Amino acid sequence: MNQPLWFDEVYEDNSRLGLKVKRILFEGRSQFQQIDVLDTAAYGRVLAIDKIFMTSERDEHFYHEMIVHPALTTAENIKRVLVIGGGDGGTVREVLSYPDVEHVTMVEIDRKVVEISKQFLPSIGTAWDDPRLNIQFRDGIDYAKNPASPLFDVILLDGCDPVGPAKGLFSQAFYEGCARLLTKGGVFALQSESPFLMQHIFLEIQQTLSRIFTHALPYFGSVPIYNSGIWSWTYASQSTTPHEPDMDRVRLQEARCKYYNRDIHRAAFAMPNDLKKLLTG
Amino acid sequence: MNQPLWFDEVYEDNSRLGLKVKRILFEGRSQFQQIDVLDTAAYGRVLAIDKIFMTSERDEHFYHEMIVHPALTTAENIKRVLVIGGGDGGTVREVLSYPDVEHVTMVEIDRKVVEISKQFLPSIGTAWDDPRLNIQFRDGIDYAKNPASPLFDVILLDGCDPVGPAKGLFSQAFYEGCARLLTKGGVFALQSESPFLMQHIFLEIQQTLSRIFTHALPYFGSVPIYNSGIWSWTYASQSTTPHEPDMDRVRLQEARCKYYNRDIHRAAFAMPNDLKKLLTG
Repeated sequence: MNQPLWFDEVYEDNSRLGLKVKRILFEGRSQFQQIDVLDTAAYGRVLAIDKIFMTSERDEHFYHEMIVHPALTTAENIKRVLVIGGGDGGTVREVLSYPDVEHVTMVEIDRKVVEISKQFLPSIGTAWDDPRLNIQFRDGIDYAKNPASPLFDVILLDGCDPVGPAKGLFSQAFYEGCARLLTKGGVFALQSESPFLMQHIFLEIQQTLSRIFTHALPYFGSVPIYNSGIWSWTYASQSTTPHEPDMDRVRLQEARCKYYNRDIHRAAFAMPNDLKKLLTG
Repeated sequence: MNQPLWFDEVYEDNSRLGLKVKRILFEGRSQFQQIDVLDTAAYGRVLAIDKIFMTSERDEHFYHEMIVHPALTTAENIKRVLVIGGGDGGTVREVLSYPDVEHVTMVEIDRKVVEISKQFLPSIGTAWDDPRLNIQFRDGIDYAKNPASPLFDVILLDGCDPVGPAKGLFSQAFYEGCARLLTKGGVFALQSESPFLMQHIFLEIQQTLSRIFTHALPYFGSVPIYNSGIWSWTYASQSTTPHEPDMDRVRLQEARCKYYNRDIHRAAFAMPNDLKKLLTG
């Protein structure tokens, strides 16, 4: 255990990203999945689920700022926010940085991921004690289709790849459930995989969301710990015109963010030429 | 040799990107460096120099379109272009796609890289036989400081990481040599490493270029085969106002490029918030 070793995420048995591990801080199984927390020289502490890198101390801002701020700076209201998944706490931390947010419900299927993240990744989940946060340990798919679930101004889907318990998070029925839970002018945003290495999944998400929402626009960035160079999220709403960012909210984030600012927001929606031809003909 | 094996690029002994190799097509040493050509399932044919991935059939457009088109669509004139490095042929292929380009000098130190690329990567180097191309196998550093070298409208530095024979390609003296070889309104563009994993090199390049050029602006994208998520190039010129893209040239490229278009061009110059604070205070 004290010997340095490589921990590799292997993608489709063809490519792998490996990190040299200084120390294994946790390894175990929850009811749902394998969880590992590694101390690495390249990325600091790293969370892996089912041997797939989820986030790290050093690069987590690339992911968490981009799943949150395009939606939170543009939604008509941001009083009530639903986060599905996001057990490491980075997404709710970014959401709760807006004083206008009054209530966040986080629906995470795996209590163990939250417990482990609280213990080993305290620099990522800095908002666990915020009184505006309500955590429910249950299946996000059930939550979205439950007629008793309340409405939200913004819904963020911070899920894994479509394997294991996260598979249903990529289905049309689930997205329809999310659309039903949105207030007027509301925004649904989600991570939507690599448009390069996982192009078939990326395109399927775009096609499915386009059937349900008036707008479904992918946006792009980099997540260094995800082996694929270019990463995508998708922004969806029922508005007939695209939302413009609220500049007060943008300035608030520019004062605290490591990655996000007004230029990055606009730039993220620029579509690589091949994807533009595939998606807009 | 017929057994599948992993070929890993190891970065600072901390992280590695590995590709499963179906077949080794070439392995050998030139006078300057180790050269490998691998047939991989994830990226098709891949060129590695000194065990660092240079380019691949499947992702080469991310790199070659972005080192060429921001400069070539904006320079006042594009009649005479100098490419330093670029032995795989992808950069000169993109440059020669402009009918207005009358002459390209390519200065590549290692004849063997060109020979191997011609033999094993014919889909990348599709312009070797273009009569406008003049290849000189010599040291780009000597070429840039030679008072007998002619002037160019655009200079592109398509070099390796600053190790081995490429080290001098990151020095102030070399950049000054390039500045002297530029015509009025000319543009110098170069790959400038990862602003995340190699941030110290990236920042040093920016600082050095800012001392020599009126404008030195980094721009960003992804190169999937480079283990680091976000990649950078830098655009430098002596103009007192930033160049606007020539829309005829942009449209020409939009009709043929896989990655580059007018939106990507503009978006690439958006700076992550932490880098913006570091570079502009």
